Amino acid sequence: MTLYEQYTDKLRRIADVNHSIAVLSWDQETQLPTKGSAIRAQQLSTLAGISYELTVSKELGDLLQQLQANANTLTEEQRRNVAHTVKLYNKKQKYSKEFVIELSRTTSECFQAWRKAKAANDFSLFAPSLEKMVDLKRQECEIIGYDDHPYDALLDEYEAGEKTANLNVLFADVRRQLVEFVKEISDHEQVASDWMYKHYNKDKQWNFGLEILKQMGYDFQAGRQDVSAHPFTTSFGSTDVRVTTRINENDFHEMLWSCIHEGGHALYEQGFKTENYGLPAGEAISLGIHESQSRLWENNVGRSLPFWKANYKNLQNIFPENLNTIALESFYRSMNKVAPSLIRTNADELTYHFHILVRFEIEKALIEGSIEVKDLANTWNQRYKEYLGIDVPSDAEGVLQDIHWSHGSFGYFPTYSLGSFYAAQFYHQAKQDIPNLEQAIASGDMEPMFNWLRTNIHQHGKLFSAEELCVRLTGEKLNFKYFMDYAREKYAYIYNLAPSLS
Amino acid sequence: MTLYEQYTDKLRRIADVNHSIAVLSWDQETQLPTKGSAIRAQQLSTLAGISYELTVSKELGDLLQQLQANANTLTEEQRRNVAHTVKLYNKKQKYSKEFVIELSRTTSECFQAWRKAKAANDFSLFAPSLEKMVDLKRQECEIIGYDDHPYDALLDEYEAGEKTANLNVLFADVRRQLVEFVKEISDHEQVASDWMYKHYNKDKQWNFGLEILKQMGYDFQAGRQDVSAHPFTTSFGSTDVRVTTRINENDFHEMLWSCIHEGGHALYEQGFKTENYGLPAGEAISLGIHESQSRLWENNVGRSLPFWKANYKNLQNIFPENLNTIALESFYRSMNKVAPSLIRTNADELTYHFHILVRFEIEKALIEGSIEVKDLANTWNQRYKEYLGIDVPSDAEGVLQDIHWSHGSFGYFPTYSLGSFYAAQFYHQAKQDIPNLEQAIASGDMEPMFNWLRTNIHQHGKLFSAEELCVRLTGEKLNFKYFMDYAREKYAYIYNLAPSLS
Repeated sequence: MTLYEQYTDKLRRIADVNHSIAVLSWDQETQLPTKGSAIRAQQLSTLAGISYELTVSKELGDLLQQLQANANTLTEEQRRNVAHTVKLYNKKQKYSKEFVIELSRTTSECFQAWRKAKAANDFSLFAPSLEKMVDLKRQECEIIGYDDHPYDALLDEYEAGEKTANLNVLFADVRRQLVEFVKEISDHEQVASDWMYKHYNKDKQWNFGLEILKQMGYDFQAGRQDVSAHPFTTSFGSTDVRVTTRINENDFHEMLWSCIHEGGHALYEQGFKTENYGLPAGEAISLGIHESQSRLWENNVGRSLPFWKANYKNLQNIFPENLNTIALESFYRSMNKVAPSLIRTNADELTYHFHILVRFEIEKALIEGSIEVKDLANTWNQRYKEYLGIDVPSDAEGVLQDIHWSHGSFGYFPTYSLGSFYAAQFYHQAKQDIPNLEQAIASGDMEPMFNWLRTNIHQHGKLFSAEELCVRLTGEKLNFKYFMDYAREKYAYIYNLAPSLS
Repeated sequence: MTLYEQYTDKLRRIADVNHSIAVLSWDQETQLPTKGSAIRAQQLSTLAGISYELTVSKELGDLLQQLQANANTLTEEQRRNVAHTVKLYNKKQKYSKEFVIELSRTTSECFQAWRKAKAANDFSLFAPSLEKMVDLKRQECEIIGYDDHPYDALLDEYEAGEKTANLNVLFADVRRQLVEFVKEISDHEQVASDWMYKHYNKDKQWNFGLEILKQMGYDFQAGRQDVSAHPFTTSFGSTDVRVTTRINENDFHEMLWSCIHEGGHALYEQGFKTENYGLPAGEAISLGIHESQSRLWENNVGRSLPFWKANYKNLQNIFPENLNTIALESFYRSMNKVAPSLIRTNADELTYHFHILVRFEIEKALIEGSIEVKDLANTWNQRYKEYLGIDVPSDAEGVLQDIHWSHGSFGYFPTYSLGSFYAAQFYHQAKQDIPNLEQAIASGDMEPMFNWLRTNIHQHGKLFSAEELCVRLTGEKLNFKYFMDYAREKYAYIYNLAPSLS
C-alpha cells in the first residue's frame, strides 16, 4: 500500500466508527424502546472513545508526517485532503487528556443542569454549571490559539476560517438594515394565516412531505424519512442519508418546513462522491455551508411563489376542507408572515437573524469576558426588547430555550445566519446561471436547481473552503447585500411596501 | 479499581462494540435503504475487527492471568464468569492470524458461491468452495483440539460441553423411535388445515401477534417488533431486545409461529440481570438452551389446546370470515398437522428432527472424512428418502436449502433438536412444579410459566452449564424420553392413535 492508501484506510476506519455512532444515535431518536436508553448512552460513549483514540493515534500522526514529507508525490486533491486531516490532528494534539476529561464531565453536568433549570424555569439553577463551562471554553481558546479574537478559536470548530471581525461587520448590517426593515414591515397590514392552524391529518401530511422530498431530488434508495421529537438529518455515508420530521396536526408549518429543511441538508450529504467516503473531500465544508443548503430549499425555493405554483393545487386537493377557499397568493403570503416572536426555532426568515444576533453578541462577550454568566438572563431580555421589541416572560422561553450552550457549543449559532446569507448569494447566482430557473420550479421541475447545487457545491465536499467556494461561484466573498436585496424584493411584494430605493 | 472491576470494564467495552454491531445488523435487516448495503457491510467489518482486537488483546490476557492467580479473592459467581472468559480467550489464542484471515476469506467466497448455486439450482457450483471450507473446518478441529471426536471441537462453539457421543445416542433414538412413530401417524387419517391458507389481513395479523407477545410477558418498553425477510431476535442488552416477524397473507402459520418463537428467545434475553451486562452471567448458556426457550413457547405452549382455549375466541373475532365455522378442536389439530416435507424451516415439530438428523449425520461424516463433498447431494437425497420418505426434486430444495454450511457453521444444526428436547424436559418439570399450570394458560394467564422460566433459567445466564442447569431443574441429564412421551401423548390425541404401550 502507498502512504496515501494507508491514509485513506485509516480515515475510512475512523469514518466507519463515526457512522456507527450515527446509526446508534439515529436509532436512539427514532426507534429505541424507553428502557434501552441507559445502555445505549454507554454504547455510544464506548464508540466515541474508540473513535477518539483512532483520531489522535501516534500511527496516524506518523503517517501524516510522512505524507507531508512526500507531498510532491500527491495530487492537488490528495494534498488538500491531507492538509485538512493534519489541521484536525494537530488541533486535537493540543488538548491534554485531563482537559478532555474535564470538558466531557462538565458537558454532562451542564446538560443535566440545563434540563432541570428549563423544567423549573429558573436560570439560576443553570448558572453555576454554565460558569464552569464558559471558564473551560475560555481556556480552550488559549489551548487552540488565535491571532485576533479568542472567539475565533471556537468559531473555527464549526466554520473553518471564519473570523469574529467578519461577523462583526455582518451582524452590524443585520442590526442596521434588517431591524429597520422589519420595523417598516410591522407598520403595514399583517397577512392572514389562520388556515395553517386548522386540522391537517397526520398521514396525509406525511405523504405530502414525501412527495416534496422526491420532487427536490432526495434519493429514497439512499435514505429514508422517520419521525422524531426534533427533526434532524444524519449520514452513514452518502448512500445512506436519513432525515426525520415531526408532524403537528394543528400547525401545518412544522412538517412542511422541517421536511424541506432537512431535505436540503440531505441532498448535500447524498451528493458527496462515494469514493471520497471518510475523506475531507467526502465531508461538508462547514455548518454555514450545510445550512445554506437547507435554507436555500426552505426559504429561497420552498417559500417562493413559483414553488407553490407547482404544488398548491395538489395540496388543495389533499386538504380541500382547509384550503379550497384560500387563493394561491394568500397561501404564499401566509407562509411568509413576518412577526417577532420569542422562540428562535419558530421564527420567520427575517426575525430569525435577530435571535442569532442576540446569541452572537452574548457568547462573544462571555468569551472575551465583557459580561458574566450571572448577568445573562438580564442581557438576554434587554436585547430581545431592543431587537425584537418583545418582552421575555420567563427564563424557559428566554435564555434557557436552546440546548447549545449546555453542550459547550459556543461559536455554533452564527452559522445559522451564515447559512441564510450564503443561500441568498448562491440562489442569486443560480438565477444568473440557469435560464428560466423559476419557470422550471413553477412547473415542478427542480432538476436545474438540484443539478446546479450538486455540480457547484455538493460534489466538492471540503476541497474548497467556504470563502473559496463562494468566490468561485459568485465572484465575491459572502456579502450581506444579497440577503437584504432578496428580503426587500420579496417582502415589499408580500406586505405591499413602497419600492425600495436601494 | 480492583482486578475484577477492571475485568468487568473490559468485558463491557467489548459488549458495547458487539451490541453496536447488533444494532447495525438489525438496521440492515429492517430499515436499510437499498443503496446503503455496501457501506454498511464495511462498517460492520470494521467494528468486527475492533471487537476481535479487544477480545484477543494482551491486556485482557494479562488481567485474566492475574485474576486466576488471585481466584481466592473472588466469589463463586465471579470465578465462574472469569472461567468462561478464560476459556474463550485461550481458544481464540490458538488461532493464527493467517488462519483467521483464510477462514474469513473462504467464508465470504463460500457464501457467494452458495447464493449463486442456489439461484442456479446446481450443487456443483457450490462444491469447490465448500470443499475448501470443510478442509479448513477439519484443520480448525485440530487447532482447537478434542478428546474423542473432531466434531466435538466444533460443537463446543455452539453448545459448550456437548459431545458427539451424546448426540449419537440421542439421534439413534430419533431414528429408532420418532421415525417409527411418524410412520404410525401417517397410517391414520390426515387432519384438515385448509383454513390456515385463506386470506388473513396483514395489519390484523400484526396486531394479533403483538397481543400474543404481550400475553407471553414480552416487555415492549425493553424491545420492539419489526418486519424482516427472515424473522430473528437480537439483543443490545437485556433492556433492548428486539424481535422481527414476517407476514404472509395467505398462510397464517408464518407470522404466528415466528412471533411466538422469537418471543420465546426474547424473553430469555430480557431476563438477564442488567448488572451482568457484558459478563458471561448476562449471556445465554448455549444455542440449545436458547432454542429450548423459543420451542417451549412455540410448541409446548403455543401449539397446545390450553393456549388456544385462551386465544381462539379472540382470533375468531378478528377473522370471522375464515374461522367462524371452524371448531377449536379442529383449529388445534390443524396447527399440529404432521406431514414430511422438503424444507426444514417449514417442518412440523416431529419431522423437523429428521431434517436435523440428516444434517447431523452428514456434517459429522464430512468432518471425520467418511464422506466427501462431491457425494453430498446424493447422500442428502438418499437420507431424505429413508427418514422422511420423500424424493428431493432439486438441489435448491435439497442440499442447498440452508445457509449454515456456507457460513462454516458446522455443529450448529444439532442445537435445533437439542432445543426441542430440552423444552420437553423443562415443560414436563414445570407442570410438576406449578399446580394447575395448564389451567392458568387456558385462562390466558402466562405468568406462572413466565416466572418459572425467569427464576429457573433466564436470570442465571451462563452461570450453569446446560447439563448443570438440566440436572438442577429436572434431576437428570437431557433425556429423549421426555420429548417422546410428549409427542406420543399429544399426537395420539390429535390423530386418534391407539394408546401407547410404552
